[in-house]
Amino acid sequence: MPSADVFDHISVVLVETVQPGNIGSAARAMSNMGLSRLRLVRPRGVLSSECLKMAGKAVDIVTGAAVFDSLQEALEDQNIVIATTSSRDRAAKQRLYSPREVAPLVLEYTATQKVALVFGSEKRGLTDDHLALCQYLVTIPAHPGHPVLNLAQAVMVLAYEIYNGQEFDLSPRDVLASQQMRDEMFEHLEKTLLRIGFLSSSNPGHIMNSIRRFLGKAELMPRDIQIIRGILTQMEWFAEEGHKLEAEKVRKP
Amino acid sequence: MPSADVFDHISVVLVETVQPGNIGSAARAMSNMGLSRLRLVRPRGVLSSECLKMAGKAVDIVTGAAVFDSLQEALEDQNIVIATTSSRDRAAKQRLYSPREVAPLVLEYTATQKVALVFGSEKRGLTDDHLALCQYLVTIPAHPGHPVLNLAQAVMVLAYEIYNGQEFDLSPRDVLASQQMRDEMFEHLEKTLLRIGFLSSSNPGHIMNSIRRFLGKAELMPRDIQIIRGILTQMEWFAEEGHKLEAEKVRKP
Repeated sequence: MPSADVFDHISVVLVETVQPGNIGSAARAMSNMGLSRLRLVRPRGVLSSECLKMAGKAVDIVTGAAVFDSLQEALEDQNIVIATTSSRDRAAKQRLYSPREVAPLVLEYTATQKVALVFGSEKRGLTDDHLALCQYLVTIPAHPGHPVLNLAQAVMVLAYEIYNGQEFDLSPRDVLASQQMRDEMFEHLEKTLLRIGFLSSSNPGHIMNSIRRFLGKAELMPRDIQIIRGILTQMEWFAEEGHKLEAEKVRKP
Repeated sequence: MPSADVFDHISVVLVETVQPGNIGSAARAMSNMGLSRLRLVRPRGVLSSECLKMAGKAVDIVTGAAVFDSLQEALEDQNIVIATTSSRDRAAKQRLYSPREVAPLVLEYTATQKVALVFGSEKRGLTDDHLALCQYLVTIPAHPGHPVLNLAQAVMVLAYEIYNGQEFDLSPRDVLASQQMRDEMFEHLEKTLLRIGFLSSSNPGHIMNSIRRFLGKAELMPRDIQIIRGILTQMEWFAEEGHKLEAEKVRKP
């Protein structure tokens, strides 16, 4: 049986869901598996009769859902962000976890961290921009002939694995940096790498995504973010002020 | 990956399903998990638009479903019959299996036997008369506050456990950088951070240890090491050559 407190730290985030019935079904699946925190990014027809009908007894989860204008805003206070994808093309670039592999990670993190489980829209899933905000990528093993699950079914499988993965030692961990702190760091990093000419302003995305990926796995704590931003600030200072000083030296003798 | 032949021996049997959408959703879930044989006992609205819409690409499973007047007739040619129930009251009379416990049994039997997975109606589940026809009883572990899953969700969980009871490789793991590559990168990093004055030469160890810790968790691949060393090289170039150029500029006007 889950500790209610621990499961309170897990949010399900549905991005641009098109069919209101799926929001309701997802809420019911969450409720079945002890989850209650739902976040919706630009949803359609949240309080429609179809949505509430599918939610059944879990109607409180739907009416209590927080609504956001962008995924970025929805994730600002989250520490660990897990995205779901049905695409195996990403396997070449990034490790794909199965729900069973990720469940123990979620249970371990959620003792001290806020964990978001992110699901894309029915038609397009999550875009590359969405995925760039996420640290772990999960795909549900399915038959190659028809591998795309209904949205609420995907929520069920992941929630079921987490609920059923529970016999774990929840050892306290250090508090990790929030998504907002990481985002600000990545903005700072991109700006600095452009300044020193490591990135070209025409196409910084490719390399930035690689950096986001590996730093996303680094379990950065707030202090680590300070170190990285300290290095960046020093690089900028060196780039801006450093040569003025050096130029002085050159001029003086 | 499942052998199609083996999975051909597994049937899903839905008894007196009331909502046609659930039949469609169940068919989609089956299809996602490599199952295709559907049997319906006194269903309602099988070919309704709601049912076909929810089936999506799995519409063939619905149109090809066999329809029966009683559960007994639906099970006549089956060798192993597994019933699902959300009631824990039955535990006193009969062993309750979890989906994870029953999956290996199904996979073992299905090599030579016909296996039926039986699901009751949305409101009443399976009656005692139905259960008397079944050999194994499965219940899905769920939160006591709201333990009853939607019918199609229950089909998904059981089908998912059976599909995943097979051995398969989700994605080959990328080769990570070697310890030597990481060590050389850390040496390079320390040298550069000293050069730009971020580290003091008297005691670089403390901050370098933090960086080693978080980059150590980042599962760096050789290409990631190249990116990091590329940034360092650019910083050095900027620090060494950059001001010469800037100094030139200062001198000229």
